[in-house]
Amino acid sequence: MTVDVTTPAPVDVPGARMRREIAEQPVKWHDALTRGGDQLRAVRARIWNRPPKAVLFVARGTSDHAALYANYLVQTALGVPAASASPSVVTLYGGAPDLRDVLVVAVSQSGGSPDLVAFLEMARARGAATLTLTNDTDSALARISDEAIDILAGRETAVAATKSYTGELLALAALFAGEETLAQLPALPELGEKVLAVATSRVEELAARYRYADRIMTAARGYSSATAREAALKLVETSYVSAHGMSSADLLHGPVALLDQSVPLLCFTSAGPDAREIAQLVDLAGERGVDVDVIGDGTVTGRTLPAVLPRGVAPELRPVLEILPAQLLAAEVAVARGYDPDAPRGLSKVTRTY
Amino acid sequence: MTVDVTTPAPVDVPGARMRREIAEQPVKWHDALTRGGDQLRAVRARIWNRPPKAVLFVARGTSDHAALYANYLVQTALGVPAASASPSVVTLYGGAPDLRDVLVVAVSQSGGSPDLVAFLEMARARGAATLTLTNDTDSALARISDEAIDILAGRETAVAATKSYTGELLALAALFAGEETLAQLPALPELGEKVLAVATSRVEELAARYRYADRIMTAARGYSSATAREAALKLVETSYVSAHGMSSADLLHGPVALLDQSVPLLCFTSAGPDAREIAQLVDLAGERGVDVDVIGDGTVTGRTLPAVLPRGVAPELRPVLEILPAQLLAAEVAVARGYDPDAPRGLSKVTRTY
Repeated sequence: MTVDVTTPAPVDVPGARMRREIAEQPVKWHDALTRGGDQLRAVRARIWNRPPKAVLFVARGTSDHAALYANYLVQTALGVPAASASPSVVTLYGGAPDLRDVLVVAVSQSGGSPDLVAFLEMARARGAATLTLTNDTDSALARISDEAIDILAGRETAVAATKSYTGELLALAALFAGEETLAQLPALPELGEKVLAVATSRVEELAARYRYADRIMTAARGYSSATAREAALKLVETSYVSAHGMSSADLLHGPVALLDQSVPLLCFTSAGPDAREIAQLVDLAGERGVDVDVIGDGTVTGRTLPAVLPRGVAPELRPVLEILPAQLLAAEVAVARGYDPDAPRGLSKVTRTY
Repeated sequence: MTVDVTTPAPVDVPGARMRREIAEQPVKWHDALTRGGDQLRAVRARIWNRPPKAVLFVARGTSDHAALYANYLVQTALGVPAASASPSVVTLYGGAPDLRDVLVVAVSQSGGSPDLVAFLEMARARGAATLTLTNDTDSALARISDEAIDILAGRETAVAATKSYTGELLALAALFAGEETLAQLPALPELGEKVLAVATSRVEELAARYRYADRIMTAARGYSSATAREAALKLVETSYVSAHGMSSADLLHGPVALLDQSVPLLCFTSAGPDAREIAQLVDLAGERGVDVDVIGDGTVTGRTLPAVLPRGVAPELRPVLEILPAQLLAAEVAVARGYDPDAPRGLSKVTRTY
């Protein structure tokens, strides 16, 4: 008789699936960079050897945050204009812009959203090169694209996407980041393990403080603005807290009016060009008595949370790491409130919009 | 001695400035279409005679919602890819994509935001044609653009932008809408007067019901998704309600989890390709006991609000009209809560982000 020494995750505990998928991210990144490395390098080479005139991303929900991150990369590193497109241009109004010399990139965990499929079909017909990043290379999007990249996150069973998000970020970085940043990619799995180890205990304290918050605001700038949006979406999906996440620049153009003592502010920043503006926002919020915390390397600090990110990570790669504590936070807040983050009300794993 | 028979607006009543600026919109539209008509036609002719390869918009806050609207127009009517760009690509990371054959359009009431100025300077240097839509043609943005269009909204003194938003929408429609839609533009001022007349009394009831709401969700699809976002921003800015506004497709990919009996849902739709999806959302919300209202022509109806928009308006032009009841609503909710919508906390008329 053999004894099974592995401890299976207790699948009936609320949040067990989400927590397991959060924890396995560094292993999945390693897998994607090794097993998926050849394909990523080949697609990258084709894009960089003959860059398109523009890159258009189509995505929904969490994947749209990965696309927002990639918009910055493409414009800064590849030097090509990039933006996110609205699928309803096609599905509602039958729009069909001229897309010759344009690369259209669909980002979708399931690869099944009908509106993204319709957009990609139009894009092909109108001359675009098409690429899909997905967790299911048998999906409709993968089948109709010129090229499909498997993000290799493995089957995602929690409704709130976690490992598919960082898998998308990683693949996008491998395709579009500059050479210097690219060299840092292989270090990410080990850094991810460290961040998870540090964050797990620290986030519990933060979750206890956020437990009764009715609203939470999250903010960041540049590459990390994707983190702010994704962190807010996780809190919305799992804990039904009214979380607003946005670029700190957009925050200052209106929603800053919401900030008062009753609304905690969670910022994401580390050493880099975004730190100055976030420091100013932290000061401004502090003057209003707002409960401010910062997830970062300690360059800017808030009220309680110490540095949970290592120093020296390129700003281009920080989003892969800084979402980890926020994912843990969302799971903890949900459980503290008595919800099951694995089964949020009103949501299913594949959302079919037209 | 002469007697002054004009009644000056009582400037000391909370919301007097915002209400006056809401009310004067139809007159301003007429002004923009007549006094500004020659310039709009000339710029339009240049764009349509030799369309750019792509159009990139840069804007912040309310103006970014006008840009979102224009993204749809450009892709559907002009048949050219269009999207909104993030100025921080330039201001944080020094990105400088190749923008030859690209038209970059800045949309800004004040024309003074330093990050938009930096983006336009980069765009010029990298070969883009540049156009600014602004309420101040002496502004920095207007001065550095190849062409500057005065939206002719007149001086806007309320901090919450209202007439500058519809002025931007109108100018963007005049530039980018198809010929058939263009023919409907001159009818808008009269339709606007009618909508304001009907909405003023109806919105009071709705404001009374929203007075104690802590959260409000707004949703729409396609062209009208700009309305949903702008309506939420007005409620956030003036009433500090936690309002989420988004495309109904994005809503279904996550934030729909927030919807319950405690959160009213305000939708925007009329006869058109977006009506079916909004009707489904209204049904889904109704099943959950959500308090749903619809601002539209009566094609889809919610709980209480009757049709406040006329029938037969092209979906491309509806955003100009359907924001009027929402602007009134924001002012009314603010006053009902004891706030002054003319002077929201933490906001000033010109926001300088870098």
